[in-house]
Amino acid sequence: MTAPDSTVNPTEPLENFRIVLVETSHPGNLGAAARAMKTMGLARLHLVSPRCAIDDEARARASGALDVLEAATICRDLAEALQGCVLTAACTARRRDLPHPAYTPRQAAPELLSQAQRAPVALVFGSETYGLSNEQLMQCRWLINIPANPDYSSLNLAAAVQVLTYELRCSLHDAVMPLPSFEAARHEEVEALLTEMEGTLVEIGFLDPAHPKRLMPRLRRFFARAGVEREEVAIWRGILNAARKPMRKI
Amino acid sequence: MTAPDSTVNPTEPLENFRIVLVETSHPGNLGAAARAMKTMGLARLHLVSPRCAIDDEARARASGALDVLEAATICRDLAEALQGCVLTAACTARRRDLPHPAYTPRQAAPELLSQAQRAPVALVFGSETYGLSNEQLMQCRWLINIPANPDYSSLNLAAAVQVLTYELRCSLHDAVMPLPSFEAARHEEVEALLTEMEGTLVEIGFLDPAHPKRLMPRLRRFFARAGVEREEVAIWRGILNAARKPMRKI
Repeated sequence: MTAPDSTVNPTEPLENFRIVLVETSHPGNLGAAARAMKTMGLARLHLVSPRCAIDDEARARASGALDVLEAATICRDLAEALQGCVLTAACTARRRDLPHPAYTPRQAAPELLSQAQRAPVALVFGSETYGLSNEQLMQCRWLINIPANPDYSSLNLAAAVQVLTYELRCSLHDAVMPLPSFEAARHEEVEALLTEMEGTLVEIGFLDPAHPKRLMPRLRRFFARAGVEREEVAIWRGILNAARKPMRKI
Repeated sequence: MTAPDSTVNPTEPLENFRIVLVETSHPGNLGAAARAMKTMGLARLHLVSPRCAIDDEARARASGALDVLEAATICRDLAEALQGCVLTAACTARRRDLPHPAYTPRQAAPELLSQAQRAPVALVFGSETYGLSNEQLMQCRWLINIPANPDYSSLNLAAAVQVLTYELRCSLHDAVMPLPSFEAARHEEVEALLTEMEGTLVEIGFLDPAHPKRLMPRLRRFFARAGVEREEVAIWRGILNAARKPMRKI
């Protein structure tokens, strides 16, 4: 028997998580989210176009997690907040007609933690009033639905952050976490691939930009479900490149 | 194979839970706790000597759970709030030198739910500033510790309610929940038994009221760990009664 590797810090994956709050309206929720994060050992808070300032109420609700709140990164858009992430998950109560892979926090936690051993992973939360737009949801690979009362499923924003981060911390010890066996593509690499694919499909006459129907959402869903390895990005780009060339006569 | 009994309502145990908030100071936390409860399907809120009113801030933070907030039962003391409960658990971050049985929310949930199929079960949360007194803790049979960052383990009160109630809801479906095989004694029956025991121990000269040491806390801990069935209360009272009688000569 081999002794466990004492150089592995078991809480290290938590340091790779980003909590991304999109267009938050209530300063109290910013502070409460920071507090929820810190109680579970997370520290990286990203605010996308916040609709409120980090004010006294935010600081009061942050309590002993003022450091997390004050170190928050402000981003112009979601793409900026997801830059460099190998796995992105949107926390939402809404049901979709064309859903991405959807998991409960407990189902999602082991794979989120496994990926976070190597590179940043993002958990994305929409605004208190509007949630996330379809466009924002589509930028995330997974959906996470917190099991809730079907008659009233509206968790407070910071309460949802607390539940997700609690699951991560609990699963740290419960889950067997092998290192991912492949290197996952980064968020922006997959986005660039999908953009190139869309252009190629137009070029080869498969996608009519005037009547796109649901083709790209369906392809996004397919790629989200599969997950994209870094080497596969190159393969797909090769395929697209080949597809754009006029067929050679043999 | 037998079909599952379709007359069993799987969320029914949730209706038997009481969330007991002791000496809460911030109205916002009352509202946020009500909201957390309702999102997970709980409705019975008990407030022990609240240090604040149910005001506009409480109502705003309750959001769609105003019904839960406004139906809250106000109690003079913890004993009143625990009346009729067959299992009582205090949620606390503090470590004790003489601890009651302590569990994580995930460890505790199946048994809490199992007991709640038949009778009320209480989850007790202390004040934001002081937590629970030792005397209050000792009235509860179990301690529940939410796994947290050892450097900052101070969850917001309503966030702790959210985590506990989330675990109950998740475990509803995960846990196999046989009906408890015995009828548990109610909170007040066990309290009366312990009071009678203390009196008896004084009477028979085993407990010196001037120097009680830690005898009663230790006995409380023993009874908390064992759990007391209703029939056993009668047995113990019989034993105490016998102990108080002067020994008969044979």
